[in-house]
Amino acid sequence: MSHEALLLGIDAGGTSTRAVLADLTGRCLGYGRGGRGNPISAGPDRAADGVLDAIGVALSGTEHSLSDITVIVAAMAGMRASGGADWLLDRLVANGFTGRLVFESDLLATYFSGAASVSGYALVSGTGACVIRVRDGRIDDVADGLGWLLGDRGSGFWIGREIARAAVQDLDGTGPATGLTDRVLAHYGLSRSGARIDGRPRELEELVGALYARPPIELAVLAPFAFEETDAVADGILSAAGVHLADSLSAVLAGPGPLVIGGSVLSRTGPVRDAFLTRLGDAAAELDLRPVGDGAVGAAVLAIRAAGGTPDEAVHARLTETIAAFR
Amino acid sequence: MSHEALLLGIDAGGTSTRAVLADLTGRCLGYGRGGRGNPISAGPDRAADGVLDAIGVALSGTEHSLSDITVIVAAMAGMRASGGADWLLDRLVANGFTGRLVFESDLLATYFSGAASVSGYALVSGTGACVIRVRDGRIDDVADGLGWLLGDRGSGFWIGREIARAAVQDLDGTGPATGLTDRVLAHYGLSRSGARIDGRPRELEELVGALYARPPIELAVLAPFAFEETDAVADGILSAAGVHLADSLSAVLAGPGPLVIGGSVLSRTGPVRDAFLTRLGDAAAELDLRPVGDGAVGAAVLAIRAAGGTPDEAVHARLTETIAAFR
Repeated sequence: MSHEALLLGIDAGGTSTRAVLADLTGRCLGYGRGGRGNPISAGPDRAADGVLDAIGVALSGTEHSLSDITVIVAAMAGMRASGGADWLLDRLVANGFTGRLVFESDLLATYFSGAASVSGYALVSGTGACVIRVRDGRIDDVADGLGWLLGDRGSGFWIGREIARAAVQDLDGTGPATGLTDRVLAHYGLSRSGARIDGRPRELEELVGALYARPPIELAVLAPFAFEETDAVADGILSAAGVHLADSLSAVLAGPGPLVIGGSVLSRTGPVRDAFLTRLGDAAAELDLRPVGDGAVGAAVLAIRAAGGTPDEAVHARLTETIAAFR
Repeated sequence: MSHEALLLGIDAGGTSTRAVLADLTGRCLGYGRGGRGNPISAGPDRAADGVLDAIGVALSGTEHSLSDITVIVAAMAGMRASGGADWLLDRLVANGFTGRLVFESDLLATYFSGAASVSGYALVSGTGACVIRVRDGRIDDVADGLGWLLGDRGSGFWIGREIARAAVQDLDGTGPATGLTDRVLAHYGLSRSGARIDGRPRELEELVGALYARPPIELAVLAPFAFEETDAVADGILSAAGVHLADSLSAVLAGPGPLVIGGSVLSRTGPVRDAFLTRLGDAAAELDLRPVGDGAVGAAVLAIRAAGGTPDEAVHARLTETIAAFR
């Protein structure tokens, strides 16, 4: 058993969870992955399984157990507002944990995965889309993150819904023809029939039926089609996504800083990134874009800080390097 | 028992159902209302109850029974594509019906509620929004009617969602301030707190929670706020709705004709109607706008035609007049 302070940073997402075992100097001693870790989307029991599994893997092959851990920071969406911790704390205590459990925003973990500075910005566009401004190491302002029905403009869901709309409007005659239509039809096992029912192409009725038979959020799976298709409609959707993301950033922008990019939509170069930078104009020159793959480094940064450590540039660099060595 | 041909026209909607008992000359002999009549939204048993209740009221106080009826036309959304008639026919037969049951589109019933001509247009904007072109008495082309997730642009749902978006973007700082925000907050029992949680106003978190806790389609209940509030944001939403409705009509427009208007959004004068007419430009002069309250007259027109009658202007006028006398 070690006498140095040991911490766990947990990056718990809707599809998978990462756990980082680290010390105050930023040295990663263990790393593990688990299943879905968000209690809102996965349910509390399944989410606790995901977190505990990731922790178990991170501790395996080390001399440490949960009883050695001083602080656990669990970064996940929606848990700071909802409050309740028992769904996770009870399971941790049952496995020997006697330290402190702190919930943090997944967006803040994304930010600190790409930056050591306590001031900057993070923009995440995956299935959803949200921008934060960070000041003194805390979230100071937020734009969007309003969910699929009301916001998330420029997200993977948003792009997928625009693709679905473009396809049905093409078939309906209220929108331009686009190569996206055949991709969407094929995705749902449909094809053009030439037949009409009550003034509509049969495949339009079938496509509408298929789209409404699924949860709306699943439209996000269509998003890659906009990157594969190169016609004006597809380009227009991606450009509009970039403009929306720039406008969300502009709503919180106040001076230069690192801009940490999470999620796949803006991580790659191409039409979204181009439109994003064009829309930002001169402000883009003041930002240092830093794409990150997940929030694991940032969760560990937050854990070090919660334990009284100082996650400066050197600690951040050590975490980034030693976590990478485990993956 | 009468020996003249007797017909029933049923206008079955998502919230209520109307039944018209008529003869081939367009004379309304009985009229009744029932509950929800659409099997897709209400379920087949409840929908059959709604239709049978309306028929029962229409026949009560007359010398007639279901066994005297030659043809029943049931106008409702979605039934022509789905096909199955047993949910209703079995119940009708069990009550003595030996005639023919025909399903028609609710949109066609709306059209014939306002026009006797076999060529024209109908635009319905209630909770949803759809436009049809009618030729030779049948639906020849359709625009929109693609549902809340993919279309229904300019509908009550669409307006309600834009209001909800305007409110959350106002609170979020990504959109302009608007008087709609306090109306929406009050609707959900919320008010401005001055408190912030993780960079967001507390009431924004609460409002987002309230909005996502309900079925999306319920956003349509917010639509009246845009007509009550008179600021630039509210006017912008109503004008955009009018433009969308005009664009949907333009997609099927091919020459002059009556334009029958169903649903409350475009029935009243004001910003939606103004923007609609402005967007149509010269084409508006060729259209004869005719708001109707429901599809009862049209369902009876379709029943007369299905029974071999000729629902000309005189028959149409008689139906309109004699049905009105019953309401």
